[in-house]
Amino acid sequence: MPSAWAQQDALQFKQFSNEILWNGKCYSDLKELCKGIGNRLSGSAAASKAVAWGLNKMKAAGADTAYLQPVLVPHWVRGKEQLQLEFATNKFETVPMLSLGNSQGTNGKLLHAKIIMVRNFAEFEQLDSNQIKGAIVFFNYKFKQDLVNTFEGYGDAGQYRWKSPSMASEKHAAAVIIRSISTGADDYPHTGAMGYRNAKAIPAIAIGNETADRLEKELAKRSVEAKLISNCKMVDTVLSYNVIGELKGSTYPKQIITFGGHLDSWDVGEGAHDDGAGCVQSIEVIRTLKQQHIKPIHTIRAVLFMNEENGLRGGNAYADSLIARKEQAIFAMESDAGGFSPRGIGFEMNDSLKAICKSWKPLFEPYNIYDFDKEEGGADISPLKKLTTPLAGLLPDPQRYFDLHHTNKDVFEEVSHRELKLGAFAMTAFIYMVDQHLFK
Amino acid sequence: MPSAWAQQDALQFKQFSNEILWNGKCYSDLKELCKGIGNRLSGSAAASKAVAWGLNKMKAAGADTAYLQPVLVPHWVRGKEQLQLEFATNKFETVPMLSLGNSQGTNGKLLHAKIIMVRNFAEFEQLDSNQIKGAIVFFNYKFKQDLVNTFEGYGDAGQYRWKSPSMASEKHAAAVIIRSISTGADDYPHTGAMGYRNAKAIPAIAIGNETADRLEKELAKRSVEAKLISNCKMVDTVLSYNVIGELKGSTYPKQIITFGGHLDSWDVGEGAHDDGAGCVQSIEVIRTLKQQHIKPIHTIRAVLFMNEENGLRGGNAYADSLIARKEQAIFAMESDAGGFSPRGIGFEMNDSLKAICKSWKPLFEPYNIYDFDKEEGGADISPLKKLTTPLAGLLPDPQRYFDLHHTNKDVFEEVSHRELKLGAFAMTAFIYMVDQHLFK
Repeated sequence: MPSAWAQQDALQFKQFSNEILWNGKCYSDLKELCKGIGNRLSGSAAASKAVAWGLNKMKAAGADTAYLQPVLVPHWVRGKEQLQLEFATNKFETVPMLSLGNSQGTNGKLLHAKIIMVRNFAEFEQLDSNQIKGAIVFFNYKFKQDLVNTFEGYGDAGQYRWKSPSMASEKHAAAVIIRSISTGADDYPHTGAMGYRNAKAIPAIAIGNETADRLEKELAKRSVEAKLISNCKMVDTVLSYNVIGELKGSTYPKQIITFGGHLDSWDVGEGAHDDGAGCVQSIEVIRTLKQQHIKPIHTIRAVLFMNEENGLRGGNAYADSLIARKEQAIFAMESDAGGFSPRGIGFEMNDSLKAICKSWKPLFEPYNIYDFDKEEGGADISPLKKLTTPLAGLLPDPQRYFDLHHTNKDVFEEVSHRELKLGAFAMTAFIYMVDQHLFK
Repeated sequence: MPSAWAQQDALQFKQFSNEILWNGKCYSDLKELCKGIGNRLSGSAAASKAVAWGLNKMKAAGADTAYLQPVLVPHWVRGKEQLQLEFATNKFETVPMLSLGNSQGTNGKLLHAKIIMVRNFAEFEQLDSNQIKGAIVFFNYKFKQDLVNTFEGYGDAGQYRWKSPSMASEKHAAAVIIRSISTGADDYPHTGAMGYRNAKAIPAIAIGNETADRLEKELAKRSVEAKLISNCKMVDTVLSYNVIGELKGSTYPKQIITFGGHLDSWDVGEGAHDDGAGCVQSIEVIRTLKQQHIKPIHTIRAVLFMNEENGLRGGNAYADSLIARKEQAIFAMESDAGGFSPRGIGFEMNDSLKAICKSWKPLFEPYNIYDFDKEEGGADISPLKKLTTPLAGLLPDPQRYFDLHHTNKDVFEEVSHRELKLGAFAMTAFIYMVDQHLFK
């Protein structure tokens, strides 16, 4: 990196961080989103409110152009639900639970059946249909607490959320209970997406770690039954929107640098870390570049994607729109790993571009942003892979994320103003470097 | 670093992290300390309980020897206190406040006086005694939010807590109000130590950032008076203890590797991050080394220091005891910067030892512990400098610390179990390396 512009960039970085740490609006924006609107599952009334809110925020941040991009999204509803476990013979106790997203419920009818526990897929494979038929299969797989990068643990344990309902259905189980995909030392159940593939839809629910521990202990002693009533179902397809705000490129307006987070959340908590944080940080990038009078060379576009959680329709629609509009997606970045202290930026791109991005590391080190060695993009920008767009992902500290991901605990109070703002700084500085220096 | 033992050490690190992340007791220990005992200012009944608790924990962790080391400590008490500010003419409003630690109160009498605001010491210097006499000086200095390392901001703004009471007293002020030494986007007042040097003792209190903002605005419009009643005072000197647990060195029992945190806290909140975290992490080091059947070469000693907050008597007594016992303090490490995700380890030692410590960095990188370039020791181990002991300090992520430091918000719920445990891992692994490899 030539030292002349490195020095100039270092000064610009300090301007960005001063502006964001003293005057940043992402934290108060997040409060509005979380406390004024709350959680916002695709297709819900709250998601519509969030779209209108996001559009106003993009305008207020100083976007040259701010607009909505239509997306058809699935609309799943939870309804009332209750799980009771027989923790003593013939005594049923109501426990915290959440149906998994997209799953079918019991249509409000009582499902009363015996629980069969398996520790993992291997144990499940050893059981045949006769043993499972009519029973509730409890997939008691534990999140690997020893993995320091908790996203690896999520990839590992996450399979049990995605696959176990269809696997159990194929062997004629009546329902599935999973131990939540959770690092939590508590009893919060974690929801999240599942799909049935081609199997018959059976109820699929998650219980918290403490309830799972109790159930495991009880099953070691005796047979345990469960009573489940739930009403969740997929209701229809609804028109919704991606929210877009941009600063037009002075030299290459049709070359687009995209960055964003997703505006939808699960229907519990407030979607604060997942992914209100990524949304308000993206709006902060626009605001800060404008406030600093940066005239971008390429078009700088913030996208608040709709429907990351249960369909990725927003990400897909956005990628398709670039093709239709004959725009060139030269770069994309996502923040969807929580509003925690930024530790680094990960890359999914060819080695020569990666080498350039990594050469910027000394500029980021004064901000405690060190890790430029991980592979990372983001779900909403992943459809851009078909356009061979280079991708990047913000890497916040991952220790707290899977304590609260997809739970009632993912609320505004769990977000630190300085951590959130430093993440917004990391995005602003990185997008600035991409615009100014990556394509020379 | 020879690759043969690097590989062996990497395996040992993985054993440490597995043990701590799956079976660590530091989080449940912290819950006992915070919820069972609570805050524990030197000389208080709770501090005595904490001493007994700590001794039991050292024994349970498997220390070869666990004992108490007597320390005489000051005993300061807060008592009832109330501050009212005249936010509209003749309308006094009660606001959140805390007297600064060690300060004298109004002896329960009403102090009613005009407020004079200064933004910094330079503004204060321009006022003479006639202008200040009988007034309450409001030192409205703001924590530098733009400093990414918040400990630098603490050093900078902290002077206003330490120095302003004596400075104002020398010009015959009636009392001092400071804007809290706080990064918080809220109204929590932060206490902390001050001293009068040789000046007459006048009341000294802190208000939260929101109240300080309101007061600043009001003072821009008109004159504002305050009413203060407080009862805080230094009452006596009390016998207390450092709590010590050790694993005897197999080859060099008189060569001591010390590590610890401080057991006392301020009299608000629960002293969870400051410094319950450092105490339970230090106990975890002993437990883990024992559980892993490590036979240390030198004596490995965990110390829960008493009276870091308002006297440093424990740290001084400990350093003196080493001399008296003809022990050699070959190394010391402290964890007193919060139970947040560890980012690195800082060093205060000669360059050749520092180079060896830094050469271990590749072993720590898989645990997201990268920063080996900062100067850092710790308050309790600082008296060991007179023995030329090499010092190290755990460097956790610093973004949240000064939101809650010395406030009612420093409670168990603000601590993440995985972040706390990773800090305990960092200490365990580092102390292991010091014992095995630093002095060859």
